[in-house]
Amino acid sequence: MANLAPFLKLSPSPRVRTSPFWPGVVDAGVVSCSVYNHMLLPTQYRSPEEDYRHLKTRVQLWDVSCERQVAVSGRDAADLLSLFFPRSIETMVTGRCYYVPAVDQFGRVLNDPLILKLASDSYWVSIADSDLILWIKGLSAGLGLDVDIHEPDVSPLAVQGPLSARLMERVFGPEVVRLRFFGFDRFGFDHRDYLVSRSGYSRQGGYEIYVDGSENGMTLWRALMDAGHDLDVGPGSPNYTERVEAGLLSFGGDISSKNNPYECGLGKYLDLENADRCLALEPLKRIREQGPERMIRSLSISGPPVPNCQDPWRLSKNGEFAGKVTAATWSWDHNQNVAIAMVEAPYWDAETCLEVELPDATAEATVRSGFFS
Amino acid sequence: MANLAPFLKLSPSPRVRTSPFWPGVVDAGVVSCSVYNHMLLPTQYRSPEEDYRHLKTRVQLWDVSCERQVAVSGRDAADLLSLFFPRSIETMVTGRCYYVPAVDQFGRVLNDPLILKLASDSYWVSIADSDLILWIKGLSAGLGLDVDIHEPDVSPLAVQGPLSARLMERVFGPEVVRLRFFGFDRFGFDHRDYLVSRSGYSRQGGYEIYVDGSENGMTLWRALMDAGHDLDVGPGSPNYTERVEAGLLSFGGDISSKNNPYECGLGKYLDLENADRCLALEPLKRIREQGPERMIRSLSISGPPVPNCQDPWRLSKNGEFAGKVTAATWSWDHNQNVAIAMVEAPYWDAETCLEVELPDATAEATVRSGFFS
Repeated sequence: MANLAPFLKLSPSPRVRTSPFWPGVVDAGVVSCSVYNHMLLPTQYRSPEEDYRHLKTRVQLWDVSCERQVAVSGRDAADLLSLFFPRSIETMVTGRCYYVPAVDQFGRVLNDPLILKLASDSYWVSIADSDLILWIKGLSAGLGLDVDIHEPDVSPLAVQGPLSARLMERVFGPEVVRLRFFGFDRFGFDHRDYLVSRSGYSRQGGYEIYVDGSENGMTLWRALMDAGHDLDVGPGSPNYTERVEAGLLSFGGDISSKNNPYECGLGKYLDLENADRCLALEPLKRIREQGPERMIRSLSISGPPVPNCQDPWRLSKNGEFAGKVTAATWSWDHNQNVAIAMVEAPYWDAETCLEVELPDATAEATVRSGFFS
Repeated sequence: MANLAPFLKLSPSPRVRTSPFWPGVVDAGVVSCSVYNHMLLPTQYRSPEEDYRHLKTRVQLWDVSCERQVAVSGRDAADLLSLFFPRSIETMVTGRCYYVPAVDQFGRVLNDPLILKLASDSYWVSIADSDLILWIKGLSAGLGLDVDIHEPDVSPLAVQGPLSARLMERVFGPEVVRLRFFGFDRFGFDHRDYLVSRSGYSRQGGYEIYVDGSENGMTLWRALMDAGHDLDVGPGSPNYTERVEAGLLSFGGDISSKNNPYECGLGKYLDLENADRCLALEPLKRIREQGPERMIRSLSISGPPVPNCQDPWRLSKNGEFAGKVTAATWSWDHNQNVAIAMVEAPYWDAETCLEVELPDATAEATVRSGFFS
């Protein structure tokens, strides 16, 4: 399949929404975007290498408004979530985030969101790129449950990078840096309370601020930018190279509704012993017992820097299909091409050598024992 | 809100899929794309005016693979569809397409698809830009219905423009041009049968070929291109100016799940007298009785050509909110700016003059009695 034309422009459309931070994003010199949950997701500001090195040494503001919230509340809220999240909802702790795949009744992954427990009858499901709200609404309508389901006007702004704590405490006060990983609480800024979690789609540490009310977006963006001059704060985005190194998955790219959680390497986030109400309990138990037939793996790819991976690249061994690469990039820190791939069981052991079909060449791919941490 | 930076590039991602026709699209010189149903949707090849004039005088091939099909089949298929399409499913005729809004139990529009009735227990729901499959799956799971729901490997290729019939009969034979509007049937090409409908997202006439099996896409693309040299066949796409002139709506842009079908001007596609099973029957009857509070309207906007409408533009009358423009463009054929807007009831009468807030100016907008046909 032909590669994406590198000059391709993105058409404007009200169908693809901008964010509350958009004026700041444009001022900061955004170069490219993707589309995610019907919104623009900025993806690059400076060169890919500059964005990457800056993230790993400084602190960045990311417009990740496209991580939309599905607010689920009411008497049957926990019961409803129990039907498609394969773990106990009741034992979740208020004020904490949980990464759990959402599954249909066959155990196929519909999305890999974070769940934020706001109260025993109130949750935010912070979604990856699919309209999970439609599944939740449909299931609830079919069962006639007593629950309110809507997308609030809440737009996450991520503060990521090793200097993120220093920036955050200047704006939200010293209490904010006491948050534990995946904890959240409310912190004051400019006479308003903001829900802040210690979380984010990088391994560099950071926070996500759930900005409630689009009209408040730019005040916060500017305050964070202004407070961090000496920290070299700058704009950034979920970083492709950093996330491939770390093995942070992209729903719709690396994994999809064709996969079960075990194939995605997400088995550790399931708790089937406390998921009696889950519609997929029996299928998931069967898959766990039999073991998955393929699984997400970290790869190295030989040779010079690979191009962007638009359509998945075929992996083979002696001509036999061995899997597919879904994300690949040159790693400046590790001086090699790194990749995320869905690899078939006979080929997934560490050190297995495979052949990968790049758009205009073939190269050697080696299965690694794990991702870079 | 700031306008979309005109230079914005689209990042490649396997999360945003290419189509079976992609090599042809790139060869034909695609300039820009949007993202629709997690796929690339080509939006421009030559200048906007050249694309527009060519569509209105010749014949174009459109890669509209992003119009995905949700295949619903099985014993309970018609019953399931009856729950969220406010009309009779049973009385639909096999071999015909139906444009009907899909609604939730409150009567809010979830998508505005075409339904293709393949058999009394088998339907394709050809969707606009939202994951309607998740609503259908959720509703079915909640009710425990006996139905199969999946997205087949089917990618529509549209042939649009006044010369489309002449091109189609050269490839599919003389029978294909006997199709009536919104009829479909199977026609042979290259030893395979293709489902072809007389339909498409333009008012210039044309067909949609539902290519079953991605591996067949380029053979058909090339055959149509080769057969139409003397007809000046060329690449094209759903044309922004032509669709705004004609009032063809864009779900997620002009209308959304905040709207009911009457607000969208889609009341004529409902048949509440034969929609007893529809979950939204009572809310829709109430809205019909009370009348909607706002409605889609055609507008003219004074002055020189307006820029692209990224974020909706506010309409007002003496300072009062009067609605919002969601799509606007210079019409070369009509020598004026034309627009689609959701206009509040007190202001929706034809000839009402309103003020519209463009990104960098204000202009006069006049409500028209209807769209250009």
